[in-house]
Amino acid sequence: MARRARKQRPIQTLDRRGLRHPFAPQSIFSDDETAHIHDQACHVLAHLGMKILLPEARELLKRAEAKVVDETVHFPRDMVDAALASAPKTLVQKAPNPAQDLDIREGSMIFAPAGGCPNVSDRIRGRRPGDLESYVDGVKLMQHFDVIHKLSPAPEPQDVPVHLRHYAMMETQLLHSDKPLSVYGRGRKQVTQCFEMIAAALELSDDAFSAAPWCSCVVNTNSPRLLDNPMAQALIDFARAGQMIVVTPFCLAGAMAPITVAGALLLQHAEALAAITLNQIAKPGAPVMYGGFSSNVHMKSGAPAFGTPEHIQMTIGSGQLARHIGLPWRSAAGVASNTNDMQATHETLMSLWATLQANATLTFHGAGWLEGGLTFGFEKFIQDIEALQTFAAIAQPLDMSEDALGMGALEQVQPGGHFFDTDQTMTRFATAFAEPVNADLRSYGTWEKAGAETADMRATRIWQDIVANAKPPAGAQDRVERIRPMINAFTDAGGANIVD
Amino acid sequence: MARRARKQRPIQTLDRRGLRHPFAPQSIFSDDETAHIHDQACHVLAHLGMKILLPEARELLKRAEAKVVDETVHFPRDMVDAALASAPKTLVQKAPNPAQDLDIREGSMIFAPAGGCPNVSDRIRGRRPGDLESYVDGVKLMQHFDVIHKLSPAPEPQDVPVHLRHYAMMETQLLHSDKPLSVYGRGRKQVTQCFEMIAAALELSDDAFSAAPWCSCVVNTNSPRLLDNPMAQALIDFARAGQMIVVTPFCLAGAMAPITVAGALLLQHAEALAAITLNQIAKPGAPVMYGGFSSNVHMKSGAPAFGTPEHIQMTIGSGQLARHIGLPWRSAAGVASNTNDMQATHETLMSLWATLQANATLTFHGAGWLEGGLTFGFEKFIQDIEALQTFAAIAQPLDMSEDALGMGALEQVQPGGHFFDTDQTMTRFATAFAEPVNADLRSYGTWEKAGAETADMRATRIWQDIVANAKPPAGAQDRVERIRPMINAFTDAGGANIVD
Repeated sequence: MARRARKQRPIQTLDRRGLRHPFAPQSIFSDDETAHIHDQACHVLAHLGMKILLPEARELLKRAEAKVVDETVHFPRDMVDAALASAPKTLVQKAPNPAQDLDIREGSMIFAPAGGCPNVSDRIRGRRPGDLESYVDGVKLMQHFDVIHKLSPAPEPQDVPVHLRHYAMMETQLLHSDKPLSVYGRGRKQVTQCFEMIAAALELSDDAFSAAPWCSCVVNTNSPRLLDNPMAQALIDFARAGQMIVVTPFCLAGAMAPITVAGALLLQHAEALAAITLNQIAKPGAPVMYGGFSSNVHMKSGAPAFGTPEHIQMTIGSGQLARHIGLPWRSAAGVASNTNDMQATHETLMSLWATLQANATLTFHGAGWLEGGLTFGFEKFIQDIEALQTFAAIAQPLDMSEDALGMGALEQVQPGGHFFDTDQTMTRFATAFAEPVNADLRSYGTWEKAGAETADMRATRIWQDIVANAKPPAGAQDRVERIRPMINAFTDAGGANIVD
Repeated sequence: MARRARKQRPIQTLDRRGLRHPFAPQSIFSDDETAHIHDQACHVLAHLGMKILLPEARELLKRAEAKVVDETVHFPRDMVDAALASAPKTLVQKAPNPAQDLDIREGSMIFAPAGGCPNVSDRIRGRRPGDLESYVDGVKLMQHFDVIHKLSPAPEPQDVPVHLRHYAMMETQLLHSDKPLSVYGRGRKQVTQCFEMIAAALELSDDAFSAAPWCSCVVNTNSPRLLDNPMAQALIDFARAGQMIVVTPFCLAGAMAPITVAGALLLQHAEALAAITLNQIAKPGAPVMYGGFSSNVHMKSGAPAFGTPEHIQMTIGSGQLARHIGLPWRSAAGVASNTNDMQATHETLMSLWATLQANATLTFHGAGWLEGGLTFGFEKFIQDIEALQTFAAIAQPLDMSEDALGMGALEQVQPGGHFFDTDQTMTRFATAFAEPVNADLRSYGTWEKAGAETADMRATRIWQDIVANAKPPAGAQDRVERIRPMINAFTDAGGANIVD
């Protein structure tokens, strides 16, 4: 392209870890309105209360002066205030590789991929229930891209019996990745075994393990105003072990939440405060994130919808509520589309941009979600990486040097000329622009002659190549070797059943 | 869905005209940096100057104290300052139907579809050179959706000889739409005839026509620092007739502009200031908009890229420069993809969100762009309407009434219950959420059984239905009848050749 010979040098690889939000948070509420919703949420918790199924949790709350009527817990305002005061305002989630540790605080921009998907799909093997093979492939993809900061549990390895599945998932995470780990809250026995496996794999003493969060667990409420046994158990057990809880009511306005943006967020906020309060009463100062994943249903059909105006507004409002209580928080992208089409990317980008507008600390489901989360799509994962890497590039500082401003380049080029071989271009061409992941920028004719491949077809080659060439990261084999005897012993002892 | 009988009432149609930006503008520059780029742009214009091919334009500028050396015009700073002082800060572009008039000022959020595309594509007729049939269909689609606020010239009716094409395009706009009109700046004769046709169709006296902009024209510079004959001519002729110019340097960083975000915007700004200055010298106070459409090329191939981090940054920076000089301004979405795939929607949504971040007054190419603007895609148009309507919905005021907050609804629903039949839902269900245009929200199984249609397939049915059922708006037949004799006379006289 340039007529002058260029000194070839390698394309500089951007380090996409430790990202900070480039834009100021937007708002849908005034500060007064945000405070009012918080007050009303406290009112809901005090007067309507939250149904909590786990007797141990009710007992804990009762001892802390909550009023308990049958299974319903009424939270006094000062109990909620105390929990918000003790909850940490900044967190570091530790990873097997310290270079992958997450600095979690206001302004952090952290991305996690699709999580919790029971199914998996790709263009080679089709759509099918998740299995261990596809989970391994998924973790390899999560490990490959540095804009993915944290592992998510997906696709679900359904071919492994559920009482043994946490062993396979832990082994897979530790063997194929060195990023922050994810643990399901499926009952005390499974959770405790996971903690033991992590401590053994990473050679942590009990004190070292409980001194920092080495794994995290998403706790959903059962909206409206219900907390089931495994979730309440996780809130307690993770707190006591010093491990991280990500509280996430999933409020679909018009179905399990009020039909308005304000009403759905009021419910989300009340439920999140209840979960945070239980968590902090179990152990004050325990690592916990506020969270919300609220969208709306389509009222004609009752189907969940994502990337909608209401989803965007609720995401932005969630950020305001999180900053009101001063906690780092999680948000999420979402997709309803059943396939890798324009709808899928529309929904992902609408909801991802909302998380930017909202300054979400941690964005879940940032890559690979399809079908409202029922399927982890490999091609979709690759396409979504393009979006996350775009955000990572925007978050880099802008070069405003005199050389960048380019008065010299302007002087070198005559009217109607071009800048291909200015000194400025020569110096910068290799690193000037972010390299696309999956975009095809060729002209129509060239693209058509080359087979007219669509974005999903190109993505297939990309994930296949990554999966085929992935190697366990440094130290991973050793980490897994350390827990193999433990897994064998747990398995021989019958595994660990999940708790309803 | 609801167990209680609902009073059926029609879905309320949102009026998507007169939109205002819901979010504060973001920034990539500090205020000092913005001012510095403006100062440097003035320096470029004074010291390097702009090559202006049209002798009439150079003469005008020379009389206004510009220094002219051969074809290069050097703009003194005070000449630029005077132009910025005389350029209107608010504009109203008039439409054949007064209800479609555009209020153009800081904070306005106005959308125009893809413009200037030589080709057209749809799933029925394939990809082909634009023709009058497809232009008629395109204008019908632009008219149908109220979130499209302004007509764009696309797809280009290439089957009409170019010396007669402006008659066919004017007739089509006036017959199938009542929205603000678009006129190409292809030489004085064509432009003057277009002005005469508009005045006749709308029964405007000379004074009434020149008192307000009844049409607009995009003026691109030939970056770097070159203004060709038809563009300079349009800057003069539209100004003198009181019609609207939308100044739009198209600066591709790394090719026709410096390889940096700051440098490309510096060039864009200098070129825009030159064009605005010529326009205002031709007639102080003439309706003119600042504009920019800057992105980057892919340095390995030289291909234009859109929706990139740099495109987003330049869009946001353009907004800062526009607000620095106090003028309403145009921006644009952009797409490199050759087909209706995830890449296409990725690029559109990245660049559309950038225009929101930038608080663009007028966003061109908001629906239907493909292949870097070489093709107007009918299915892509429909899919993009989903995005624009999402933005229109976000721009509506949020209901923060006590009923919206929904304490009553929360009290009605037991823990674990649902909100389908609360009083709040019953009152609001028909209007609570924006209805999707092209999204399929069915479950995977239902969707698959129904034929597993992708978004582009669904979009085909939508545009076909609109095109088949479109009727000329009220008064349109009369407006066209008034100019038919004029068009016949112009045609008999040999039409009007375009000017190089």
